[in-house]
Amino acid sequence: MKKNITLLFALIISLSAFSEDGSRLWLRYSAVNVNKNLFSGIIGNPASTPCKEFDYAWKSMGNMSLTQQKNITDKILVIGTGKDNFIQSLKISKELKLIGTEGYLIRSLKVKDDSITVIAANTDAGLLYGVYHLLRLIQVNQFTSSLDIKEKPSYSVRILNHWDNLNGSVERGYAGHSIFWRYEEEHPTITNKDVTLWTEYARANASIGINGTALNNVNAMPKVLSGEYLQKVKAIAGVMRPYGIKVYLSINFSSPTALGGLKTSDPLNKDVVKWWNAKTKEIYQLIPDFGGFLVKANSEGLPGPQDFGRTHADGANMLADALKPYGGIVMWRAFVYNPDEKDRAKQAYKEFLPLDGQFRDNVIVQVKNGPIDFQPREAFSPLFGAMKKTALMPELQITQEYLGQGNHLVFLSTMWKEFLDTDTHAQGNGTTIAKLSTGQVYPQKLTAIAGVANIGDDANWCGHHFAQANWYAFGRLAWNNELTSEEIANEWITMTFNNSTPASLSNDCHTQIEKVMLLSREAVVNYMMPLGLHHLFAWGHHYGPEPWCAVPGARPDWLPSYYHKADSVGLGFDRSASGSNAVSQYAQPVKEQYDDLTKCPENLILWFHHVPWDYPMKNGRTLWEELCYTYDSGVMQIRDFQKIWDRTEPCIDAQRFSEIQSKLRIQVRDAVWWKDACLLYFQTYSKRQIPYDIERPVHDLDDLKKIKLDLKQHN
Amino acid sequence: MKKNITLLFALIISLSAFSEDGSRLWLRYSAVNVNKNLFSGIIGNPASTPCKEFDYAWKSMGNMSLTQQKNITDKILVIGTGKDNFIQSLKISKELKLIGTEGYLIRSLKVKDDSITVIAANTDAGLLYGVYHLLRLIQVNQFTSSLDIKEKPSYSVRILNHWDNLNGSVERGYAGHSIFWRYEEEHPTITNKDVTLWTEYARANASIGINGTALNNVNAMPKVLSGEYLQKVKAIAGVMRPYGIKVYLSINFSSPTALGGLKTSDPLNKDVVKWWNAKTKEIYQLIPDFGGFLVKANSEGLPGPQDFGRTHADGANMLADALKPYGGIVMWRAFVYNPDEKDRAKQAYKEFLPLDGQFRDNVIVQVKNGPIDFQPREAFSPLFGAMKKTALMPELQITQEYLGQGNHLVFLSTMWKEFLDTDTHAQGNGTTIAKLSTGQVYPQKLTAIAGVANIGDDANWCGHHFAQANWYAFGRLAWNNELTSEEIANEWITMTFNNSTPASLSNDCHTQIEKVMLLSREAVVNYMMPLGLHHLFAWGHHYGPEPWCAVPGARPDWLPSYYHKADSVGLGFDRSASGSNAVSQYAQPVKEQYDDLTKCPENLILWFHHVPWDYPMKNGRTLWEELCYTYDSGVMQIRDFQKIWDRTEPCIDAQRFSEIQSKLRIQVRDAVWWKDACLLYFQTYSKRQIPYDIERPVHDLDDLKKIKLDLKQHN
Repeated sequence: MKKNITLLFALIISLSAFSEDGSRLWLRYSAVNVNKNLFSGIIGNPASTPCKEFDYAWKSMGNMSLTQQKNITDKILVIGTGKDNFIQSLKISKELKLIGTEGYLIRSLKVKDDSITVIAANTDAGLLYGVYHLLRLIQVNQFTSSLDIKEKPSYSVRILNHWDNLNGSVERGYAGHSIFWRYEEEHPTITNKDVTLWTEYARANASIGINGTALNNVNAMPKVLSGEYLQKVKAIAGVMRPYGIKVYLSINFSSPTALGGLKTSDPLNKDVVKWWNAKTKEIYQLIPDFGGFLVKANSEGLPGPQDFGRTHADGANMLADALKPYGGIVMWRAFVYNPDEKDRAKQAYKEFLPLDGQFRDNVIVQVKNGPIDFQPREAFSPLFGAMKKTALMPELQITQEYLGQGNHLVFLSTMWKEFLDTDTHAQGNGTTIAKLSTGQVYPQKLTAIAGVANIGDDANWCGHHFAQANWYAFGRLAWNNELTSEEIANEWITMTFNNSTPASLSNDCHTQIEKVMLLSREAVVNYMMPLGLHHLFAWGHHYGPEPWCAVPGARPDWLPSYYHKADSVGLGFDRSASGSNAVSQYAQPVKEQYDDLTKCPENLILWFHHVPWDYPMKNGRTLWEELCYTYDSGVMQIRDFQKIWDRTEPCIDAQRFSEIQSKLRIQVRDAVWWKDACLLYFQTYSKRQIPYDIERPVHDLDDLKKIKLDLKQHN
Repeated sequence: MKKNITLLFALIISLSAFSEDGSRLWLRYSAVNVNKNLFSGIIGNPASTPCKEFDYAWKSMGNMSLTQQKNITDKILVIGTGKDNFIQSLKISKELKLIGTEGYLIRSLKVKDDSITVIAANTDAGLLYGVYHLLRLIQVNQFTSSLDIKEKPSYSVRILNHWDNLNGSVERGYAGHSIFWRYEEEHPTITNKDVTLWTEYARANASIGINGTALNNVNAMPKVLSGEYLQKVKAIAGVMRPYGIKVYLSINFSSPTALGGLKTSDPLNKDVVKWWNAKTKEIYQLIPDFGGFLVKANSEGLPGPQDFGRTHADGANMLADALKPYGGIVMWRAFVYNPDEKDRAKQAYKEFLPLDGQFRDNVIVQVKNGPIDFQPREAFSPLFGAMKKTALMPELQITQEYLGQGNHLVFLSTMWKEFLDTDTHAQGNGTTIAKLSTGQVYPQKLTAIAGVANIGDDANWCGHHFAQANWYAFGRLAWNNELTSEEIANEWITMTFNNSTPASLSNDCHTQIEKVMLLSREAVVNYMMPLGLHHLFAWGHHYGPEPWCAVPGARPDWLPSYYHKADSVGLGFDRSASGSNAVSQYAQPVKEQYDDLTKCPENLILWFHHVPWDYPMKNGRTLWEELCYTYDSGVMQIRDFQKIWDRTEPCIDAQRFSEIQSKLRIQVRDAVWWKDACLLYFQTYSKRQIPYDIERPVHDLDDLKKIKLDLKQHN
């Protein structure tokens, strides 16, 4: 009888442990079916994070800890740096020299007839990445006894930007509240639950190679630099450190005035310099490996050096000088634009290009992939390639501000790859943004890539289960920007859904889910903003469509009509030489390609041209017809995704299956909403019929115009 | 200059006169292109309604009044009864004898080489119907000089039942407030606007042969029989009279108590009899051609003879005796059921069949087409055929209480024809309800048909422009129940849309609209309640789906689960011999056909059987699959209707085009709502997948369950 009770208890525990709420992300070790005899023992420093993480995972897979060995024997797992005796004996030091501080080797070796697996690196961080790589091979059932892997990261800084406010809300966050901050009556506090959550966060990031995190919103409050907030930052840094992750802070450029009580925040003012030097020193005394500052200045109403007649370079360099002694860096955002400019797409280039060469070497300018603002499809930012003497880092948005937020299934890897693989022709053929940003084209000491995080305190971290794939993909591309979206999707699907109850993920399910993921970004472009349309979003929350949006007294560059320019002639923003001439910011032959209506890629045609409604597209349709068919195809794609997803029911645990099913239902309704809103609105200009073989609108334009969603961030 | 101003005025007047709000119904004479030389003059009594109506229409078509002639000459139009000298001279008196009081002849005659058109009848009412027939021929461009038409009506009483409350609301009305009553602080009033509206109403009814109107809700208030209300009834009757329309009143069986102050309303009580005799006399002194009473008694909480231990026959006969001296009739409704009975469908039969033969000959029992309550598809009421010695009249519902109300395009003619053409086999093959109800099978002195009106004070009378077609179809079928739905649709489309701006109705538009109309009822069955499902409606308002509806303490027979009986085994109400045995109320071989699952028509299979989810349907699908595919086909049909409608844009005036377009958009959304609600709910019992090639649900069941529409009648 006692045995039965024990079994029952075990069952209850196991059921609750397997609650499929998505909280385990892609690290579902307990769901992995592993051969317990893969390894006969381990050699490594048991106190090191790499060994502890391996042990944690191995035990989670249902095994006993591997016993520590002193001698190399059959099937031993060896984890160590070049300093360790075991590794030295393996004579791989030459190779280790080539992989840098974060790279690693994973090698199956024969030593005196014994077959062993070695993870070697120059640092514990490298070992940790190697351990996660090995674990991933086990997770996707690709571990073999003939491994020969050598990896090092594409970027030295691979950072998440959390737009987390100190009151706990997350700007453009769709997954709950901040995991770092909360609304507090008096002082910032830290609980055991915080530490647990931060540890899980750190593990997830490290497992995909992320090594930095900016803890607070770029719209920064000065008080984050106050003593009591820095204490909390120190605590977070302490949790991150073993996982190779540095913490960074977004700073408010007015901090000397607002927090320090100075009369100015002029970066060339001595007291200001002194204040920043002292503040930086204070930070490093608390956090010796503090990463540095992320700065949004003179942008969207935030203060900056221009308030004092100084340049972005003046501001960035002042901060860089303060950080330099400690090895810290400044990430200075190029996201600037002002309401009077006739083409917002041109402004970052106009403001930053003249400063090329003026930045310190521990400054890196953080540039969004496109010149506007994380739209479903943008032309690439012309700063990439044009800034020849300045370190640039891409800023990607993982959180889906403009891509359906917490509701739409959109795998962003294909969008980022499209961007990274774009050939700027800045320095001849093949000067892709991937190469530019990793310093292969122009000398660039510092390389980095940032992703605006989609993480909150929701059980599944990211709101939509598939949004986890975007966190995953950002990390993997930051580590290796040559990975394909297919490879990333494949890894993620297997690790995230494989071995789940009630049945293991069949090949067909896997293939179908991969298909959905790979098509999903083009689908969202199709039903939201095809052919280069951009910023048709509802005022403020950016969720649904409002191409008609007209807010009295609003900045013109915050209104959709600024971008789509619909009129009786046609649609689109003329950025050709005869228009705003934004095309001039690109190198040849890109410039000519974009400038010439007949050569411009059709998926950007309305980005660069005001195209007549009857303009003949390459497939023979008119622009208007093509617009209609493309919106419709987007709806059909999501309907198809639904069909595919519903068929996966036997492969996926019930909870995630139905939660994703439910979101897809929203996505279809939204896709129809987008299609109807945009087509019915643009029809008031085109005065043309929606082709009659297309599914008809199911909404009235007047009704759609009345929709006002009360969407707010979590406060 | 003056001329130009006049022209401008004329234009303005003509534009406003042509406002396409649907108010002109099918009587759009001003839009008719008529050859002004069709007639050279007219012979007839200029003061009679038939001649006045012809003159009104002829002038509305843009002509001068026809000049009165004394002698027959070429192209004269002759309108007169057998009493008139012109008609007597034409020697058609034999034929006139055969067409009864309301029939008419329309004949092209050669008289001494002169070609004339004659409308002849025995009464002014007959002439009026003949005039409208002639006008319809002109409207649909089928007037010729070789006409030979002889018509008389299928039913002697062709009546609209207005469920209009004395406070101006309309029960199950979706087209505004009552045209007869309004909320009044003190006494009922009459305005000139009322009289104009009533006249237009009378004309529209007369034009399609309706000759009776019950002015108030069957859920009647006693005060309608008060002196001041009778004064208003008298005024209405005065407007109706020239158009051959009698007024009727719904009465409350407790009126002697509630209005007369008696202590009882027992129909066998002498004082009660006296009270009704006196009240009836009072009515006939005011309205000598008053039609009679419509009675809902002992039904849904209303009082009736059973309250005093008497039968429906006792109650009806007492009223009939009071009306008899004046030629009035009683229409006694058979719509009775009580909450304790296990099968509501059996109850009217059980209560009324024992009374067969007990009713006076000026009583007619008014029976709804189906045994439940105006569902999208019902089996026919078994009272038809079973009541052999009692006059029965069909009650049809024109207002779309259960068919999408003011929003869905549903042409009800096909539903009514399906009912009328049903062979009851009550007295051998071919004893259709059409024949039974016109007295061709059993002796039945009094014949009648009632339609619950869909009319309110909305500009277009009926809410949905296409709902006008149901008013029209009811009238046409009441006149001639052998007309086909195609014929009725054709007439209505041409008269309602032809010659409208901006272009005349092309043949293709006409054909496509006809197609939509003829398919529309089956479509609504498909997306609402296919395969014999019934009463899945939301509590109270009956608009949307609530198959799950469970109101604590509610009557079981007001809840959908009472009807669908979904469980793990299957779906549907077992009314076979092994179930409630409702099939026993039908004559052979209908009884056996309904009783046998393998013989039961599949469109009624869930009406008569509890069918297992995996039951093989005739097409090889399981019941569950068929249910899914059928719901889906309903959605697809409405999507198709949208495509068809949108293509009619060049043919239809802008206002009605877009108003109908807008309603179709609602209908598609509702169809998807119905499909999702029913399939997702029934899926909780069937535990089977929705076939994967079907478009997936876009709602979550839990969300659908939260929908509570705040729909009320107009008060």
